Amino acid sequence: MLMNFCLDVVLDFVNKLSCLRFCVLSANQRYMGEAGGFRVSSSERVREMENGGYEVPENANEHCPGPQSESAGKSDACEGCPNQQICATAPKGPDPDLAAIIERMATVKHKILVLSGKGGVGKSTFSAQLSFALAAMDFQVGLLDIDICGPSIPKMLGLEGQEIHQSNLGWSPVYVESNLGVMSIGFMLPHPDEAVIWRGPRKNGIIKQFLKDVYWGELDFLVVDAPPGTSDEHISIVQFLQATGIDGAIIVTTPQQVSLIDVRKEVSFCKKVGLQVLGVVENMSAMREKCPEMLNLIAFSEVFDSSAGGGVKMCMDMGVPFLGKVPLDPQLCKAAEEGRSCFDDSKCQISAPALKTIIEKLLSQLEVSKI
Amino acid sequence: MLMNFCLDVVLDFVNKLSCLRFCVLSANQRYMGEAGGFRVSSSERVREMENGGYEVPENANEHCPGPQSESAGKSDACEGCPNQQICATAPKGPDPDLAAIIERMATVKHKILVLSGKGGVGKSTFSAQLSFALAAMDFQVGLLDIDICGPSIPKMLGLEGQEIHQSNLGWSPVYVESNLGVMSIGFMLPHPDEAVIWRGPRKNGIIKQFLKDVYWGELDFLVVDAPPGTSDEHISIVQFLQATGIDGAIIVTTPQQVSLIDVRKEVSFCKKVGLQVLGVVENMSAMREKCPEMLNLIAFSEVFDSSAGGGVKMCMDMGVPFLGKVPLDPQLCKAAEEGRSCFDDSKCQISAPALKTIIEKLLSQLEVSKI
Repeated sequence: MLMNFCLDVVLDFVNKLSCLRFCVLSANQRYMGEAGGFRVSSSERVREMENGGYEVPENANEHCPGPQSESAGKSDACEGCPNQQICATAPKGPDPDLAAIIERMATVKHKILVLSGKGGVGKSTFSAQLSFALAAMDFQVGLLDIDICGPSIPKMLGLEGQEIHQSNLGWSPVYVESNLGVMSIGFMLPHPDEAVIWRGPRKNGIIKQFLKDVYWGELDFLVVDAPPGTSDEHISIVQFLQATGIDGAIIVTTPQQVSLIDVRKEVSFCKKVGLQVLGVVENMSAMREKCPEMLNLIAFSEVFDSSAGGGVKMCMDMGVPFLGKVPLDPQLCKAAEEGRSCFDDSKCQISAPALKTIIEKLLSQLEVSKI
Repeated sequence: MLMNFCLDVVLDFVNKLSCLRFCVLSANQRYMGEAGGFRVSSSERVREMENGGYEVPENANEHCPGPQSESAGKSDACEGCPNQQICATAPKGPDPDLAAIIERMATVKHKILVLSGKGGVGKSTFSAQLSFALAAMDFQVGLLDIDICGPSIPKMLGLEGQEIHQSNLGWSPVYVESNLGVMSIGFMLPHPDEAVIWRGPRKNGIIKQFLKDVYWGELDFLVVDAPPGTSDEHISIVQFLQATGIDGAIIVTTPQQVSLIDVRKEVSFCKKVGLQVLGVVENMSAMREKCPEMLNLIAFSEVFDSSAGGGVKMCMDMGVPFLGKVPLDPQLCKAAEEGRSCFDDSKCQISAPALKTIIEKLLSQLEVSKI
């Protein structure tokens, strides 16, 4: 009587150049003959889809070639399928927008995604300070915010209330400095309180536009700040950029136990989509060593809980690099709230050196020498 | 040359019983005749869709009746539309699953959504403790976790490693006590590290199954814990439950400024979908009054920043009730990490009385008297 679910989704990018394959190991319910007894097995049915990331419809025939394949609606396997006519008439072949994205990205040397399993770990703060730091090293930097429903990058860069301009070359990013351009849906909202109530396909659409229509010019680095999780935004950004070459992902976490569970999921996501994990950054940490007297006061709090080992241990378990710890620094938080770089003055004494070490480690991993 | 975007999506539930209307005020780019000049206006084009929540395809004709409408593909407006044939052959009419959901929900007296604009504010901790508290008052309680990509409810309720069973009546929730049942995708994963890499439609599918196929039995309260944001999960849960009557939403926030910005978006979401805001709960607060000496140490940190007024002020601005503040309590965090109720022993002296007051306020708002 036990229902043993096994819900596996495997994104199998077997060909990095153009033919993205999306494999769905679908949970297939099979009636077992007992009273109300079902058993669900993961590997009974493997469905593959070309050029996609779209799922095969639930009611499709057993050997569905995928609604985007050339033989969709025309294959023998489509005989009698309720979707046959729709598939036969739908547009086919590789997405022409992918070619436009490849062209746009030809002027971008390095692409780095910043991910986190859980919200509230300081991911956007890290993305912002990473961009400030790279720009301060005289690199040409672009920062793309793909958190469509909760964009915080404009605030973190001190760019609230700015708007995007359009030229013959495309959408122009908003510039903090001449070598640091930023793009976010936050620049497109008529009112900061306004909710962006969008389902996945619409979010994917604007992300594609950001990649296809924004004129970044020559960039040394494109830093992409993603929302927490492993859903539409994450699948889409990898899918859209895969053919252009992504350097990898930085995963931001905190020493908190619940956050570490979610970051393991993020590492598993990277492995499944073939994205290199450049490293894990443990944020709001190191207070343990610096201010033990304060730790006693707030032991077991949301910020500093009892989880031993934290990020370092998890990295060893998962076989991914640990880039370093960023101490909880009131001055860093203040800089982020005010949209300033923490490297500009000597206020962020606790966090700035740690961030600098992390970024240098990252650059040496990417085999980029300072300008 | 200024591109003034106005991206409005209005969910207009005009008829609560069965005919859900989904209005999309689509951003319609109109070429202005200047060199590369676009101006985008919000209200140029209003598209409506019956029985949906699906969007009108970007390439649809001007007066598209909506792909789910009876006249889809057959209306005069469909002439020459690239989607005409697909629309003409797609299944029509109201979603039959909505009737099944209405039947399931007939035994549930009150339905409460727990929302937050930003992650990491302690929303799941609040949902868990609210459920524990209601169960301790001898109410029959169900807790539904619709955070599909990052479920933390199983851990918060001390139910890690549990599995869902199936009976003739449907999927059985996992029970903490005889009057507290829990449903989460976390119970269906073969491995806790495994990422659920799902796009919107698949997430919507499992949420529908949770509402349609779970046998809750007679419930006084169904508490629904949503992920942060305003996307698929949020639109779907409101759409699926609208016809069954939702009591309203509780929005959880922190006194942090960035979190308050996002909660305003959540309030705007509730207003747009016609969901009553039962109140806002400010989490991790009140340390200001209780431990001013500690506040000095960590002033401007991520947890306690300089934003004056916080939740109370925002509620007055937005015209929604303020339910109360929950102090940052190390013991509450410990209880949540260990999946325990904070009301069971006398350890959570700082937070438990505050939570109790909030829940009593909530019950009096819902006009529910204690058993």
